[in-house]
Amino acid sequence: MEFQEYFPIWDKLNTAQQNKLLGNLIAKTVRKGTVIHNGSMGCTGLLLVKTGQLRAYILSDEGREITLYRLFDRDICLFSASCILRSIQFDVTIETEKDTELWVIPSEVYQSIMAESALLANYTNELMASRFSDVMWLMEQIMWKSLDRRVAAFLLEEASIESTNRLKITHEIIANHLGSHREVITRMLRYFQNEGMVRLSRGTIEITDADRLAELSEM
Amino acid sequence: MEFQEYFPIWDKLNTAQQNKLLGNLIAKTVRKGTVIHNGSMGCTGLLLVKTGQLRAYILSDEGREITLYRLFDRDICLFSASCILRSIQFDVTIETEKDTELWVIPSEVYQSIMAESALLANYTNELMASRFSDVMWLMEQIMWKSLDRRVAAFLLEEASIESTNRLKITHEIIANHLGSHREVITRMLRYFQNEGMVRLSRGTIEITDADRLAELSEM
Repeated sequence: MEFQEYFPIWDKLNTAQQNKLLGNLIAKTVRKGTVIHNGSMGCTGLLLVKTGQLRAYILSDEGREITLYRLFDRDICLFSASCILRSIQFDVTIETEKDTELWVIPSEVYQSIMAESALLANYTNELMASRFSDVMWLMEQIMWKSLDRRVAAFLLEEASIESTNRLKITHEIIANHLGSHREVITRMLRYFQNEGMVRLSRGTIEITDADRLAELSEM
Repeated sequence: MEFQEYFPIWDKLNTAQQNKLLGNLIAKTVRKGTVIHNGSMGCTGLLLVKTGQLRAYILSDEGREITLYRLFDRDICLFSASCILRSIQFDVTIETEKDTELWVIPSEVYQSIMAESALLANYTNELMASRFSDVMWLMEQIMWKSLDRRVAAFLLEEASIESTNRLKITHEIIANHLGSHREVITRMLRYFQNEGMVRLSRGTIEITDADRLAELSEM
């Protein structure tokens, strides 16, 4: 399976555009836990995930984090190439959450094709709209949902991504994902444990009543 | 001054595209305080503001609001035509904050030109990136700034928009803008008054120390 099969609108590009993309691609394998893009790195390029998992997050001056969205196989990361759109006035950090194989499409290559191809420009619009929707969803969670619901939703999402009810994750990491503090998350998880929804042990959170967590997350 | 002079990339469209836009425009004058778009209205079309002021906000199930951004003269509202991008999975409400003259560009007209014009598609990308940046800024405010700083920033922004230090605005409206509660805002404003930064009277908030408010808002 090669780039051609992963890039979503490959068949709709003309031969010159296809050759330009192929001739400038960089294939990379990146270890879990590596920051592959942040604001100070300038324009890293678009990232097309072959296999693995990326996390996009923002960082406050004090080092607090909040996860904006995750990218999985076949997803394209646009904001690592934010220089191609001068109206993007924010920085995201992109980190691998699993060992990841990906292709880097240099920004100026993508931009030059987008400038002449209405198809690629419209596809890019859809990409951005999709991330925008992720961020709006998150904003609504933050604004309207209380933390108990957000923690419940987070645990269920993790269990779904990892296909297990035994999550190997620290309270600190959950706090970073949700823009909260470790102490606050620990208190919440103990409450969940008292309610019989999870069982806590060193480095592990086991979901023992997914139905009730789901109910809580949707309240 | 007509549409041609307000539409940002008019000169770069071809004659057929220009005629299609002009032939399908709807000019409207809308009274202050009118909801001109919300999720249940479907696809209203793109809005180009000639004069006036629009506010885009989201609404929780319980009726709480939070302002996402404002649109002024020459700004284009894209999310009132969210049907043109299938990846947009959220609803915003658009309301006039002043008497407003605007043009409505029907969604299908804009979409058909965007499908063939890389220029218009790229311009639309910039539009969306710009709103995305507004929302990311807001998210950072909500996540990292405490409410006192947000209220201070809000008062200064209002004063700048209205070109006055005597704001005619209720505590309820400020609460709606910031996704907070009236009681919380009233408490904060009384604190500001005690600190000599504002003077409160019925229906009016007078800014008496803009420098200190500015300092607070940037902390």
